[in-house]
Amino acid sequence: MIYLVRMDVNLPADMPAEEAGRIKAVEKEYSQTLQRQGKWAGIWRVVGEYANYSIFDVDSNDELHEILSGLPLFPYMDIEVIPLAKHPSDIR
Amino acid sequence: MIYLVRMDVNLPADMPAEEAGRIKAVEKEYSQTLQRQGKWAGIWRVVGEYANYSIFDVDSNDELHEILSGLPLFPYMDIEVIPLAKHPSDIR
Amino acid sequence: MIYLVRMDVNLPADMPAEEAGRIKAVEKEYSQTLQRQGKWAGIWRVVGEYANYSIFDVDSNDELHEILSGLPLFPYMDIEVIPLAKHPSDIR
Amino acid sequence: MIYLVRMDVNLPADMPAEEAGRIKAVEKEYSQTLQRQGKWAGIWRVVGEYANYSIFDVDSNDELHEILSGLPLFPYMDIEVIPLAKHPSDIR
Amino acid sequence: MIYLVRMDVNLPADMPAEEAGRIKAVEKEYSQTLQRQGKWAGIWRVVGEYANYSIFDVDSNDELHEILSGLPLFPYMDIEVIPLAKHPSDIR
Amino acid sequence: MIYLVRMDVNLPADMPAEEAGRIKAVEKEYSQTLQRQGKWAGIWRVVGEYANYSIFDVDSNDELHEILSGLPLFPYMDIEVIPLAKHPSDIR
Amino acid sequence: MIYLVRMDVNLPADMPAEEAGRIKAVEKEYSQTLQRQGKWAGIWRVVGEYANYSIFDVDSNDELHEILSGLPLFPYMDIEVIPLAKHPSDIR
Amino acid sequence: MIYLVRMDVNLPADMPAEEAGRIKAVEKEYSQTLQRQGKWAGIWRVVGEYANYSIFDVDSNDELHEILSGLPLFPYMDIEVIPLAKHPSDIR
Amino acid sequence: MIYLVRMDVNLPADMPAEEAGRIKAVEKEYSQTLQRQGKWAGIWRVVGEYANYSIFDVDSNDELHEILSGLPLFPYMDIEVIPLAKHPSDIR
Amino acid sequence: MIYLVRMDVNLPADMPAEEAGRIKAVEKEYSQTLQRQGKWAGIWRVVGEYANYSIFDVDSNDELHEILSGLPLFPYMDIEVIPLAKHPSDIR
Repeated sequence: MIYLVRMDVNLPADMPAEEAGRIKAVEKEYSQTLQRQGKWAGIWRVVGEYANYSIFDVDSNDELHEILSGLPLFPYMDIEVIPLAKHPSDIR
Repeated sequence: MIYLVRMDVNLPADMPAEEAGRIKAVEKEYSQTLQRQGKWAGIWRVVGEYANYSIFDVDSNDELHEILSGLPLFPYMDIEVIPLAKHPSDIR
Repeated sequence: MIYLVRMDVNLPADMPAEEAGRIKAVEKEYSQTLQRQGKWAGIWRVVGEYANYSIFDVDSNDELHEILSGLPLFPYMDIEVIPLAKHPSDIR
Repeated sequence: MIYLVRMDVNLPADMPAEEAGRIKAVEKEYSQTLQRQGKWAGIWRVVGEYANYSIFDVDSNDELHEILSGLPLFPYMDIEVIPLAKHPSDIR
Repeated sequence: MIYLVRMDVNLPADMPAEEAGRIKAVEKEYSQTLQRQGKWAGIWRVVGEYANYSIFDVDSNDELHEILSGLPLFPYMDIEVIPLAKHPSDIR
Repeated sequence: MIYLVRMDVNLPADMPAEEAGRIKAVEKEYSQTLQRQGKWAGIWRVVGEYANYSIFDVDSNDELHEILSGLPLFPYMDIEVIPLAKHPSDIR
Repeated sequence: MIYLVRMDVNLPADMPAEEAGRIKAVEKEYSQTLQRQGKWAGIWRVVGEYANYSIFDVDSNDELHEILSGLPLFPYMDIEVIPLAKHPSDIR
Repeated sequence: MIYLVRMDVNLPADMPAEEAGRIKAVEKEYSQTLQRQGKWAGIWRVVGEYANYSIFDVDSNDELHEILSGLPLFPYMDIEVIPLAKHPSDIR
Repeated sequence: MIYLVRMDVNLPADMPAEEAGRIKAVEKEYSQTLQRQGKWAGIWRVVGEYANYSIFDVDSNDELHEILSGLPLFPYMDIEVIPLAKHPSDIR
Repeated sequence: MIYLVRMDVNLPADMPAEEAGRIKAVEKEYSQTLQRQGKWAGIWRVVGEYANYSIFDVDSNDELHEILSGLPLFPYMDIEVIPLAKHPSDIR
């Protein structure tokens, strides 16, 4: 089941660079593990913003919430979720 | 080069069903041709709305505008374009 | 899987009363059939508006879109879909 | 009398984890007591957000405000209240 | 139970003056009957707009919706309902 | 002359409880003095929010601004003012 | 008493040019009479829009509403009214 | 003096193609004359929309309004004007 | 050349009263000097808000930006600028 | 390939003046280097705001994101990117 997700990251201005770097490294690994499992089916940077659009392919609303709320950057993110369905013109 | 595009379709209430059907058929063919060329890289229906989110993979802003303004449904659409860049966590 | 859905109805001012009545009757039957199946788990009128909030319990994004786009009033509705997950404080 | 309520939680970034944990525990008990009384008739997590949609079944606007303003997390919440009425298609 | 209600009226530009006059007369009588019953507790014109803010004092969400949806101008109105509670500083 | 006023209160999270209590006590007295003078003609709590809707009956824009800017909570409030006029359907 | 007023004009696309011209001429005379009386204290065109910002100097909310709702173009306008007070830095 | 201007064009759905074509041709000539005079200093299509962003270099607010309100498509446009000043980092 | 300008002031909650008083005094003098020069042609308080609407009469966009960015309160303000032109109904 | 970019700068109120000055100096040099390369094709101050509108002429979405995310002020900016295409009326 497919969802489009937009994530905007807002790190506190006073977070030490070292801590920010550590969180981002864990975030990257978390994301790449899910990409390899096929659950995080796509991720792109929004040009000019500290934000991304992602495609998720998961089994349920609950699984998606578990994944998103487990993101290391979750406390610093605004997240918008748009449920998607198969389009009649899709050739795949 | 990747773009996320949202298209909302608003057909006039008084458009004859036959004309609407004809335009949608041409639209479908137009979309599928571009999908087969790899330029229209993904298309999904927004759940509950006469709208879609699509991924385009084209060479330039100008090529994208040419494709979108050539859509048979273009006069009846609100279109939003979001330019995307490679994300550092992307494994592909 | 649970979704909150808001539907705002905008019938054209020039739709004959008879046609409006007929569509609403079919809409009511359509809704009640789905309520009896347990898929349309709740429906309430928004006070002061020709709109409703509903709870749907379906198997997938695709099933929900099929249900919503099949509504007799679908061409006259603005629909917003919010995917929901189990809340940790829920006692059920 | 039925109300749809959306609650968005914004804990201060500098709240100690222990204090946050304690407030959330009291909040959970507060919510579950009201759920057992039938006043808090439903609660769901909004996918991807630290927020919930809830259904309340209370006797008056005043009772609802008393319940909501008594929430342990009330000082950290944005709350939206939508009064609902019986829908003519409701089969219950 | 108290509610603040804002009503914005949008009569179709092509409604004959006679019909508009007739509807407004019925609307006025409908409003004044409810004012005399104490249910429509206050009504004021928004300066510069074809709109009003009103205070209603009714027994339930359902009664308020019955009143509002029965307004002769209801099909031509945008209505916003804000449920109110007793304020601790109120001297009445 | 009548005005509808909405006030949203945002106390800083780090204001000591004692200071908050003191300001609120002065605010209450300030409000009740004006209510007894007939200038603050009505006040209601917005359900679920630290906010109120109030009706003011004053002689001029300047008098209203003097009253509002003199509120002890003024530095912590967002205030919206809507000038009202007599409604032709008003029976009073 | 001073008010800032913004008026946006939206004439129907199918209004005959002659009728539009006639209404605008009456509107101009109506405006200039009030300007000569000192009640319509200023009027400026918003660059690039069929809209104006105006300053009114009237005795009450009711007088302002009477003036605005009497505008020949009133049925085709969106009007926003902002009540103003004397500014402590004003040298006049 | 520099201004950024965004123009969104909304031609009525029932405008005959011939009339639309004629207006667009006059519009193009009008624009190109001003471009040659250096007053319309830049024009770009917004990707995916029937809209443009333009740079104007004119002597005054009044001259800009005269130019914009003289556009053949003016009655069908939403126009937004943003006044610009020299930027301290500008190398020109 | 005429501009309408709205300024909203947001002083930090922790700015010492003495510093705030000093800045406001300099601001007042700055404003009154420009009023006496005829450049700051009008200033009014927005009722209920720490904000003003002002009319400026200056020679260019650049002069207006120089004036506004030189305001002692500029770092604490949200400013909106609306360029105005002569209105055909203006009698002056 | 052309893009319109709006940048709003929000420096923290407690950033030492010396640090702010240093960042702005680096920012200016960064911008002017790109202007000399022809990639940053235009930059203007928004009148009354700490913001700019800029025109970029780059080879791809990725190059634009690299440039923008490399801005010394990037962590303190809200950035909006609008992809542009050649306009049929453009004489260049």
